[in-house]
Amino acid sequence: MTSHVRIVGTGLIGASLGMALTAAGFRVSLDDPSPTACRLARDLGAGMLATQLAPGDDPQLVVVAAPPDVVGAVVVDSLRRWPTAVVTDVASVKQTILDSVLASGLDAARYVGSHPMAGRERSGAAAARRDLFDGRAWVIVPHAQSSEEAVRAVREIAVVVGSAVRVMPAREHDEAVAAVSHVPQVAASVVAACLRDLPEPAVGLAGQGLRDVTRIAASDSRLWTQILAGNAAAVREVLVNVRAQLDEVVDALASLSAGEAEGALGTLSRLLEAGNLGQARIPGKHGAAPTAYAVVSVLVPDVPGSLARLLTDMGDAGINLEDMHLEHGLGQPFGVAYISVVPASAEPLAETLTGLGWRLHD
Amino acid sequence: MTSHVRIVGTGLIGASLGMALTAAGFRVSLDDPSPTACRLARDLGAGMLATQLAPGDDPQLVVVAAPPDVVGAVVVDSLRRWPTAVVTDVASVKQTILDSVLASGLDAARYVGSHPMAGRERSGAAAARRDLFDGRAWVIVPHAQSSEEAVRAVREIAVVVGSAVRVMPAREHDEAVAAVSHVPQVAASVVAACLRDLPEPAVGLAGQGLRDVTRIAASDSRLWTQILAGNAAAVREVLVNVRAQLDEVVDALASLSAGEAEGALGTLSRLLEAGNLGQARIPGKHGAAPTAYAVVSVLVPDVPGSLARLLTDMGDAGINLEDMHLEHGLGQPFGVAYISVVPASAEPLAETLTGLGWRLHD
Repeated sequence: MTSHVRIVGTGLIGASLGMALTAAGFRVSLDDPSPTACRLARDLGAGMLATQLAPGDDPQLVVVAAPPDVVGAVVVDSLRRWPTAVVTDVASVKQTILDSVLASGLDAARYVGSHPMAGRERSGAAAARRDLFDGRAWVIVPHAQSSEEAVRAVREIAVVVGSAVRVMPAREHDEAVAAVSHVPQVAASVVAACLRDLPEPAVGLAGQGLRDVTRIAASDSRLWTQILAGNAAAVREVLVNVRAQLDEVVDALASLSAGEAEGALGTLSRLLEAGNLGQARIPGKHGAAPTAYAVVSVLVPDVPGSLARLLTDMGDAGINLEDMHLEHGLGQPFGVAYISVVPASAEPLAETLTGLGWRLHD
Repeated sequence: MTSHVRIVGTGLIGASLGMALTAAGFRVSLDDPSPTACRLARDLGAGMLATQLAPGDDPQLVVVAAPPDVVGAVVVDSLRRWPTAVVTDVASVKQTILDSVLASGLDAARYVGSHPMAGRERSGAAAARRDLFDGRAWVIVPHAQSSEEAVRAVREIAVVVGSAVRVMPAREHDEAVAAVSHVPQVAASVVAACLRDLPEPAVGLAGQGLRDVTRIAASDSRLWTQILAGNAAAVREVLVNVRAQLDEVVDALASLSAGEAEGALGTLSRLLEAGNLGQARIPGKHGAAPTAYAVVSVLVPDVPGSLARLLTDMGDAGINLEDMHLEHGLGQPFGVAYISVVPASAEPLAETLTGLGWRLHD
């Protein structure tokens, strides 16, 4: 069992992990090239300063939470510095780090990569929170030489902070995140980039679809440059596929503009249907198979307390909502609450609410 | 003033408009190639059947709400059939319809295109709702020959159903929706299509970013084939720009894979920053300039009534929420409510909630 964890790098992930592990009773020591960042993490309850430890007070587990472009070097350095400790890292790309470890000639059995799939749009220790990992996936990435003990030590902290553990080899992990995370980021950024020079009235026609597609285009460009660069080969492979599909669409649209529709509609239709099929595979928020919730839409007057009344009425009826999203109209005196419930609850909910005087929007 | 409106095409948009106009006191008559669809719309309160009108009971305004690929022909037919009526349509692409009208040699002064920016993921009269247009943008598309009276008639119904009117020429409208609606649809579909053949564990790593980017990939492929085909030239132009940016990214990633990083990081970084800038231009839900709300995150036990208690507490404190989103963890016994409020309310809200025993997630 691990009792002393060293966290190297006290940004958002490192500081949050320190807070969670400290709360769970681990001794956590903190190290960061920036003494200020390190002290801030300490002040937030992420652990003690490594510089204040007694000589010989060595960690059993080292978690490297450094920026993506230095993680490999810091992991190798940590394996060298603590010759008996298990070392892991929390970077979002895994193969290049494993390659650095294997190339170092050091004892690779003590290294197991990991990737807690948690983050925020803000960065740094100031944005840290103890429950950042609660309910998130945490991918553990063993390799041919990693010891069972090392895997166990990493799994222990992932479970302690409330994550759902998944196990996956490095190459497979990197290909997966290329498709489910890195390429979507590129797509969102490219679509958003096309808005830069659009006339103001055109941007004014933006709706919820565009907002959703481009939400992550607001992400930190410095961090994402490193992430994309770190997973260059896998991201490129998916993007080449994306580009091939775009080529087909562009050609089909050119034919249609020229009045030659033969085959072109089929191309557009096939892409849209392929999108339907791919989208349907995405798991729901509970991480299980895609869950089709029923949505009940209710008009909610735009005054304090009315949404609370709505939810009190739902609670009184014993109906548990799975998700809720509130949408405001343009200058309208009410919003619409989209309430997701398990399908069997939709009709009783609609009846209950109508009976209590709520106006459904459906 | 218009008193009798004919709606040609009783799908989602036509039936919803009929319901809204009937509720506002207009006489609405309904026509559709499918007698069943037409009767369903009548039963839902969208108006009376056109087949039951007395001879000579002609509309002052005709709204064509037919599928995109037949709208032009139906508009021309309507101008011919009712020689004094104003004719409009509600299709999401405008130039090709205007071209049909101008080519017909009929009195183009009586035609004004329009585009209510409202829709749902479901289609057909069964999904219709009276308040579909409430608070949505409704673009009115005058042209060189359209009469002021025609523009006024279309504006009247847009305002009556609660929409916010925008006025824009056809070409400009089509270029705008290509960038803010049609290209995002293609991007979402292409990203989602890449998930089709992904191994199950890889799809299991999907997070909220992917869900947002691909949400609209679930849209009706038949409808969207027609929309993209109808705006082929404008969509193609934006997509060619998208492809040029992707080419740069693919080349940069290839250099990085080959170990030649010179210039490649700059390319990635420039794209991500351009995405930041474009995303920041998107207006907020209230349709005004982008509004930066402050978000207060609160842990909510996953039992009926607890969210209601939270919102009651907020209402008691007199704080009005602008938006709210609830997120569940993987198998965790609570969710996180992300509450958006005007920035000045964030601190008082956090203090109030903490004082009442709520655990903030921030």
